[in-house]
Amino acid sequence: MISVGEARGLIDSSVQVMATKKINISTLMTNGIPGDHDHVLAEPIIADRPLPPMDRVTMDGIAILYSAYENGQRRFKITGCQRAGEPALTLKNGGQECVEVMTGSILPTGCNAVLRYEDLDIKDSVATIKDGTPVEQYMYVHRKGSDSAAGDVLIKAGTRLGPAEWAVAASVGQENITVVGKPRVALVATGDEILPVEAMPRDFEIRGSNLYALAAAMGQRGFPVSSTTHLRDDLTQMHDKLSGLLNSHDVIITTGGVSKGKFDHLPEVLTDLRVTKIFHEVSQRPGKPFWFGVGERGQLVFGLPGNPVSVLVGFYAHVLPALIKMSGGTYQKRLARLAAPVTFKPELTLFQPVTVSMGDDGVMCALPKSHNTSGDYVRLSGTDGVIELPATRQSFAEGELFPFHSWSLN
Amino acid sequence: MISVGEARGLIDSSVQVMATKKINISTLMTNGIPGDHDHVLAEPIIADRPLPPMDRVTMDGIAILYSAYENGQRRFKITGCQRAGEPALTLKNGGQECVEVMTGSILPTGCNAVLRYEDLDIKDSVATIKDGTPVEQYMYVHRKGSDSAAGDVLIKAGTRLGPAEWAVAASVGQENITVVGKPRVALVATGDEILPVEAMPRDFEIRGSNLYALAAAMGQRGFPVSSTTHLRDDLTQMHDKLSGLLNSHDVIITTGGVSKGKFDHLPEVLTDLRVTKIFHEVSQRPGKPFWFGVGERGQLVFGLPGNPVSVLVGFYAHVLPALIKMSGGTYQKRLARLAAPVTFKPELTLFQPVTVSMGDDGVMCALPKSHNTSGDYVRLSGTDGVIELPATRQSFAEGELFPFHSWSLN
Repeated sequence: MISVGEARGLIDSSVQVMATKKINISTLMTNGIPGDHDHVLAEPIIADRPLPPMDRVTMDGIAILYSAYENGQRRFKITGCQRAGEPALTLKNGGQECVEVMTGSILPTGCNAVLRYEDLDIKDSVATIKDGTPVEQYMYVHRKGSDSAAGDVLIKAGTRLGPAEWAVAASVGQENITVVGKPRVALVATGDEILPVEAMPRDFEIRGSNLYALAAAMGQRGFPVSSTTHLRDDLTQMHDKLSGLLNSHDVIITTGGVSKGKFDHLPEVLTDLRVTKIFHEVSQRPGKPFWFGVGERGQLVFGLPGNPVSVLVGFYAHVLPALIKMSGGTYQKRLARLAAPVTFKPELTLFQPVTVSMGDDGVMCALPKSHNTSGDYVRLSGTDGVIELPATRQSFAEGELFPFHSWSLN
Repeated sequence: MISVGEARGLIDSSVQVMATKKINISTLMTNGIPGDHDHVLAEPIIADRPLPPMDRVTMDGIAILYSAYENGQRRFKITGCQRAGEPALTLKNGGQECVEVMTGSILPTGCNAVLRYEDLDIKDSVATIKDGTPVEQYMYVHRKGSDSAAGDVLIKAGTRLGPAEWAVAASVGQENITVVGKPRVALVATGDEILPVEAMPRDFEIRGSNLYALAAAMGQRGFPVSSTTHLRDDLTQMHDKLSGLLNSHDVIITTGGVSKGKFDHLPEVLTDLRVTKIFHEVSQRPGKPFWFGVGERGQLVFGLPGNPVSVLVGFYAHVLPALIKMSGGTYQKRLARLAAPVTFKPELTLFQPVTVSMGDDGVMCALPKSHNTSGDYVRLSGTDGVIELPATRQSFAEGELFPFHSWSLN
């Protein structure tokens, strides 16, 4: 049995970053698929023209010729108004006059300084500069090309697309953006006892819930679900359906069917389908019977045990970092401070459900949720995630910092 | 001019929580709209039957009658196999025999303890308990009804739906879930200089980018965009279009048109449309000319200045908390530690763009991104958000904690 750290290393080295794809910037507005706004850039965003493309006025007021000010002039007749979105007006009469200018407009030809309304008295179309107003050349002008030249890289490949990055792409007219693709993920529940949500189960049956937990967790982190399947504990059906899923997906996440039971066929079926087993069993609780393998095309198969807490722990601790890396990103580690002591004897990494709150000292405080053996979703409701307590120790003191995996994310 | 704190208070007290709506659990799987998985529960989730609904076996192994063990019996003939999803078998012969059991199956009738394969030697259909194995009544059995009785509240109204909560809803067969609705949000850019992404602007024109930044920010936090509009600086057009948008939306977020410029018509038009001005101008940088009002139906109108950094700061500092509260949730405050000193003279709250990283001591470290007057999206690329430095001070030391608003969220 391998450690959590070894499992992570083996998964990490099995990950292949997805091929690139193009997304159209309009997807941002059309609300197609969760996470469509959240991609890693595969090609840089390049300036199509100088930035700013003009000498741009940054304050509402007047534009003047600076040398007139230098020569002592303080009163300027307003001869026009430079609106944003209109071609440059031209200042005439050697700087004796001025042009009213609006924020975002081009600086009128012949002007080289802007004064704000706040620094002016305006009466009868004459603007007078208030005493004590500091005036400098190109004041309140964002000079053409001062940020970037045409052809400059504005955003490097490898950057995660957030609000600012999308806006830059829009501003340079890049309608189609080349990003790292996201894996097509199949969710697969196994077990004869599992019925659909709309069914009325008998006492020995239950409604399936694991796939809903996984779908919500994926959606929250910006990963769409490509397909969901329920497999009965039947060798032939499993073989046929998994074969199809392996052809059409990059990642398969299964729940159940990987323990010691007589009908836990998954490892056998997957091996049959030429999915190479990388490991089976990780020294952790919950989620020890975790199976992981790699298919012929590099598909990752995560065989999570069927227990609800195991499913969520397996997803956040092992699957999510792989999905993020496949999509070109980096899993961000978080730390939280244990708010109550924990004792745990077995030589296993303990993933302890906790509720968290931001402490006054800026450290996330993690309060362990009382132990329960049932491991069901009801007991997890209201928790924020799990804190990861290493297998090398048996007692963990209040106040110590440990890795924290969030499922409430905000 | 009001302070940032006052602005927050005024916005907060203008918020009305949205009406409830029903969402079907299948939306989780169909990838309809970003944030569909992320709602606040408006009605509790109730147990439809006892939880667990049966005496449920939690380990693969055998089930026995405990009194036989108590009477010294250690060898049990296996007479059947209790599969998950099948009706209970019955143990016969007064406990001399045993039934093989699978995790997730119902406990066979007549049994009241389970032994794991690990604690058994099985040969010729006879299971022998290994010496030293502790055996207790109902060991490895999750008792029927031990978690909840039928009719119990499993998840309270007001809980945010995360992976565990969705799973609980599925497990009790609740296909339609009553949640707090989300506001219909209109994004509106203003300005004659603004062209669509696909246009080839002349030097005095730019492509619109603010709405892309806002749409990405909203999508990231689970809020869909209901409509996007560009308004020219034209009184009549503004009046007509905003009138329609006010009828069909709960929130309108505008960019530009709220400063001192001669064509900044928005405040006038909104007042005309019976949107009551709550405030105009907040003592913050960037984003001072921020306008906020409430329409006749309680619609919130956020008039953000057109400067890119102002747009993002305004969204995260003022709009997002309102959207979250409207949707029944709570804005989670975060703190970060300033990683370099900042001096800022004006009596304004400074929203300083920063990059953040998790420190070894569990505190988020925020490194200020060098100042720039241009305030464009290129300079924001790669930053993670803004740290909020209060107006009451001019210098802020390295190592101090301040509120942090994230736009990279992970």
